[in-house]
Amino acid sequence: MNWLLPDYIADVLPNEAAAIERLRRALFDLFRGHGYELVQPPLLEYLDSLLTGTGSDLRLRTFKLVDQLSGRTLGLRADMTPQMARIDAHLLNRQGVTRLCYCGSVLHTLPASQAASREVIQLGAELFGYAGIEADLEIIRLLDAALATAGIAGSHIDIGHVGVFQALAEAARLDHVAEHTLLHLLQAKDVPGLHDYCAQFAEPWRSALIRLPELYGGDELLDQAAGQLPPLPAIGEALATLKRLRTALPSLAFSFDLAELHGYYYHNGTVFTVYAPAHAEVIARGGRYDGVGASFGRARPATGFSLDLRRIAQLSDLPRQAEPAILAPRRPTDAALAASIAALRAQGEIVIELLPGERADESRSCDRRLVEDADEWRVVGL
Amino acid sequence: MNWLLPDYIADVLPNEAAAIERLRRALFDLFRGHGYELVQPPLLEYLDSLLTGTGSDLRLRTFKLVDQLSGRTLGLRADMTPQMARIDAHLLNRQGVTRLCYCGSVLHTLPASQAASREVIQLGAELFGYAGIEADLEIIRLLDAALATAGIAGSHIDIGHVGVFQALAEAARLDHVAEHTLLHLLQAKDVPGLHDYCAQFAEPWRSALIRLPELYGGDELLDQAAGQLPPLPAIGEALATLKRLRTALPSLAFSFDLAELHGYYYHNGTVFTVYAPAHAEVIARGGRYDGVGASFGRARPATGFSLDLRRIAQLSDLPRQAEPAILAPRRPTDAALAASIAALRAQGEIVIELLPGERADESRSCDRRLVEDADEWRVVGL
Repeated sequence: MNWLLPDYIADVLPNEAAAIERLRRALFDLFRGHGYELVQPPLLEYLDSLLTGTGSDLRLRTFKLVDQLSGRTLGLRADMTPQMARIDAHLLNRQGVTRLCYCGSVLHTLPASQAASREVIQLGAELFGYAGIEADLEIIRLLDAALATAGIAGSHIDIGHVGVFQALAEAARLDHVAEHTLLHLLQAKDVPGLHDYCAQFAEPWRSALIRLPELYGGDELLDQAAGQLPPLPAIGEALATLKRLRTALPSLAFSFDLAELHGYYYHNGTVFTVYAPAHAEVIARGGRYDGVGASFGRARPATGFSLDLRRIAQLSDLPRQAEPAILAPRRPTDAALAASIAALRAQGEIVIELLPGERADESRSCDRRLVEDADEWRVVGL
Repeated sequence: MNWLLPDYIADVLPNEAAAIERLRRALFDLFRGHGYELVQPPLLEYLDSLLTGTGSDLRLRTFKLVDQLSGRTLGLRADMTPQMARIDAHLLNRQGVTRLCYCGSVLHTLPASQAASREVIQLGAELFGYAGIEADLEIIRLLDAALATAGIAGSHIDIGHVGVFQALAEAARLDHVAEHTLLHLLQAKDVPGLHDYCAQFAEPWRSALIRLPELYGGDELLDQAAGQLPPLPAIGEALATLKRLRTALPSLAFSFDLAELHGYYYHNGTVFTVYAPAHAEVIARGGRYDGVGASFGRARPATGFSLDLRRIAQLSDLPRQAEPAILAPRRPTDAALAASIAALRAQGEIVIELLPGERADESRSCDRRLVEDADEWRVVGL
């Protein structure tokens, strides 16, 4: 039984691997065309570096190892975004705007859900060094283009702003424990629990906190929220930012969700989450995280998104081209045959030169063969 | 200092990452054209599975973790080849020939040398289910084509056959400790140590073992070896196999090395190692490992190679195209500009839509810009 894999860990077999590879190339080409430069951070870092500027969630999800060279604790990355902030802050050290993209495995000690894998292929794009809303717009547009490239029809973006809850938590003078408890209740959409827990807080904060999970909807939501939430300046600014996003992205399908608080200890400003139709799991996520660069010693505004490439490939509407091969005899010294095979391969065809006695395996799709016909090699159907 | 990386661990920054990505695509395209199907095994497996059929070297180099779901020990893969054997043996379960390729990071507890990284990007191709020498020839030809694709000029292949040492060890009735000690002395090319250690063995085995490190050379080597080594049938077969390889690959630059024994406990038959000129480190390796599938419960002949993609990209002669970008103004509502940008990107150009106030960073290469000229958008030099 030494071929069994651990739970929530799986191989990617040929058809799926080919689809993921095509999608990876298409998305990298998209990012490259928009000026995003590829970088590849390591799988292993000192645990302290990996967790810099992130919340406790990531600490629990990170596998730990002992470094035999230093005796220090290493972590296997559970998220690549903090690595991007580190690279922007220290390695590139540019003054202007930096656009980066990446793709790699991240590992989790426990799966994020029953349907999740503990090895996620994370692919993303990040924009550093620009605080204005235009950077958020560029990132959301790029995410939308990525979803279109991936053939994810009808996906839906929920946009929130952590500033709303932040302002309420500050105004209500929540201590760390209360803030943390409320976050968990909000993220679990546990409305009865929220009611009970909020009983201890004074008005108007109590009502406002209880109302947050209801503040979900379309364009009308922002006016509704402005009417129902206390008139704190930070809330006004957050709602104004969301309104500007809506105006600048008239054709994008999105909803507002003021209880959308993923990565709260990490993000500031606008955050968003993408869902695909008839699929419960999140397929992409992103938002502002201006504070993370500062934890690396160089404060830089930052915004970006990342997606789960394997899941996106599974949900893709793109036709899964079968890749049928051409069978050819193996005659290493036949120059005409070699030239014919080389020409076919240069056109993107798969040509298998059969080993002596080899028969095409039934599980491998082959539909044509190369035959010699009056001194010429021609492709004919099988 | 939370941005420092562990020793022998490094980021891959934009220029290098772009070169690696181009090479990865070119090599995958090459493999695909030859009928090799991409698979992607996981980074983490049960330690027992990862080490199945491999030697103790790999055990020491493999990072270990505890699985929070099962309590069992997990390993971070230090080599992907055994994973391929597992996939061929159990997941694909094909009767005929299976050709697989892959690319991914492998991690080592300690670097293989002073110049090595502890995270190696391993890329390879494996052929399962064919015992004949034609499979070895196909793999060596594919490796040669891969090196040509990668622009590695003047690389040199050392070909050996583990059957020679195996036959001597058996004939001399070496116990496990003696066999292991001799292997280390041979791999370290420690000739004085070998002399001393072999004093305990009877002739003709003593002289034959001492002579192995000298049995390195060109085509003449095989006849020389046949004259100098004891006339064991297994040695005769190994030398005959090497002779057939030489005859079938007349234009390939290679030498024979009968002390080439990397992965001895893992390999059987022909093995090879590739070196680049003026570079001490191995850049690619491969050979037969028919026994590994059997350890997974399904005996299948196997041969293949893998290379260190990052090192190959560093050594590549291919021109490192700079990728200069075109700068464009950001006007989301200007349809003519949007069409012009989309057309340029479709041609493979990088177009950066400047954010308000953004100046092109000096470290980012930009050489042209889009300007409006009588209702048309044109690309002009900066």
